[in-house]
Amino acid sequence: MEPLENISRNRSFGGWHKQYRHRSDALGCDMRFAIYLPPQAATEPVPVLYWLSGLTCTDENFMQKAGAQRMAAELGIAIVAPDTSPRGEGVADDDGYDLGQGAGFYLNATREPWAQHYRMEDYVLKELPELIESVFPVTNKRAISGHSMGGHGALTLALKNTGHFCSVSAFSPIVNPVNVPWGEKAFTAYLGDNREAWKAYDSCELIRQAKEHLPILVDQGDGDDFLQSQLKPENLVAAAKASGYPLQLRMQEGYDHSYYFIASFIEEHLRFHSRYLS
Amino acid sequence: MEPLENISRNRSFGGWHKQYRHRSDALGCDMRFAIYLPPQAATEPVPVLYWLSGLTCTDENFMQKAGAQRMAAELGIAIVAPDTSPRGEGVADDDGYDLGQGAGFYLNATREPWAQHYRMEDYVLKELPELIESVFPVTNKRAISGHSMGGHGALTLALKNTGHFCSVSAFSPIVNPVNVPWGEKAFTAYLGDNREAWKAYDSCELIRQAKEHLPILVDQGDGDDFLQSQLKPENLVAAAKASGYPLQLRMQEGYDHSYYFIASFIEEHLRFHSRYLS
Repeated sequence: MEPLENISRNRSFGGWHKQYRHRSDALGCDMRFAIYLPPQAATEPVPVLYWLSGLTCTDENFMQKAGAQRMAAELGIAIVAPDTSPRGEGVADDDGYDLGQGAGFYLNATREPWAQHYRMEDYVLKELPELIESVFPVTNKRAISGHSMGGHGALTLALKNTGHFCSVSAFSPIVNPVNVPWGEKAFTAYLGDNREAWKAYDSCELIRQAKEHLPILVDQGDGDDFLQSQLKPENLVAAAKASGYPLQLRMQEGYDHSYYFIASFIEEHLRFHSRYLS
Repeated sequence: MEPLENISRNRSFGGWHKQYRHRSDALGCDMRFAIYLPPQAATEPVPVLYWLSGLTCTDENFMQKAGAQRMAAELGIAIVAPDTSPRGEGVADDDGYDLGQGAGFYLNATREPWAQHYRMEDYVLKELPELIESVFPVTNKRAISGHSMGGHGALTLALKNTGHFCSVSAFSPIVNPVNVPWGEKAFTAYLGDNREAWKAYDSCELIRQAKEHLPILVDQGDGDDFLQSQLKPENLVAAAKASGYPLQLRMQEGYDHSYYFIASFIEEHLRFHSRYLS
């Protein structure tokens, strides 16, 4: 296989949406990702927003449903959407939608059978941006955003690596996974029973410990079915307040957990990131 | 079953996306449709854009992928997206993706086994708008648009019923179905072997015969895989020229047949319709 195999291309708002397949050393499997290159990328390198999707998603959900390309084209920002876990026949999986393939939680697993392939933290933080920045006309200015499990991924990766990203945002993120069913199930499987080890992947914990501050924007719908059981944005607000971390978290009236919510506010997120990427 | 059963609702750009199921007398089966109600509909009746989707689609493709709600919310236009054919176990079907369920071609079939249920022309033109205008806060100002088979549907229904719609637009429409494989297959099945009967559903033929003129906007990507075999926009241009019909048909460089194309230009289509709906 070529290092980077192009598997689709669509003209979009004067730029290009493209999907690629490549061999990931970090994950030990073939992976697919999507990239949106705005028209500006034809003449000059552009900064990159990494988008992390939620449970069950692939690289396609955001690119097809969020309507982000319009504003990315206006602002001159590339968008990269990785898959949500390692994939393939040789990769461990689970019958649940919230564990295994499609549910990598953007961490490095330490327990078998997951540790062999489930190293999404390494993939999203190192291998993928190195690949993107070596192949495409982009700068090394990066922002990160995501939805639900991907909002958790965006916040934790950014909070743990403040120099790596200029800004971070999230829609409906799982901000306190150590205290909710989705997180407890995934972290028990991927990281084991020792809850101390889970704290490295908990946004509330990380924001309490943060020494440096990064611009953060979070949008959360108050009509979200997962609000009280899985998302608990009030815990992030309390953690940020306790540590004096400047957090902009907006409750959006009537909005749910769907891409209709993301589409409604993605323009504001792109404008937010653009301020720090330029 | 209730006359109109609400099966989903999502807040979107300050308005609502909703899906409904209802019994269709015209089609003799249960049907699902989607409606986007912009924020303005909460306080005053708004005009309606009917969107007809292409082969294999349902009411969901456009609502999820076109990104139309943003501009519909800004302009105060409701959008109604019906399904692309009658549906259900008792409804005739075919193994091909381009005939039967998902491929109704927006006509009234006259041949069995199709004639019993395949009456999408009656459904889209009469039954559905009567239902919409009796239940939702909308005016009787209507526009129509669609993609591919749905572009064919929009153009033919508008050209045959000039008083019914204020304006019509299409993306990548099948403008000359009597001369292309998709149309020949479907029309043979639905209408029989007499090609004279097909002309009532051919946009090129209708535009040649048109007495009244309606504002028409057509966008067609020149990177569309179906351009030469199925779409033939040059035939519509020639027919319009021959009859002096004012047609705005734009070839868009590099764009293909996908929703990435539709999303890139849907704002301009909504602005176009808004001029005639207000």
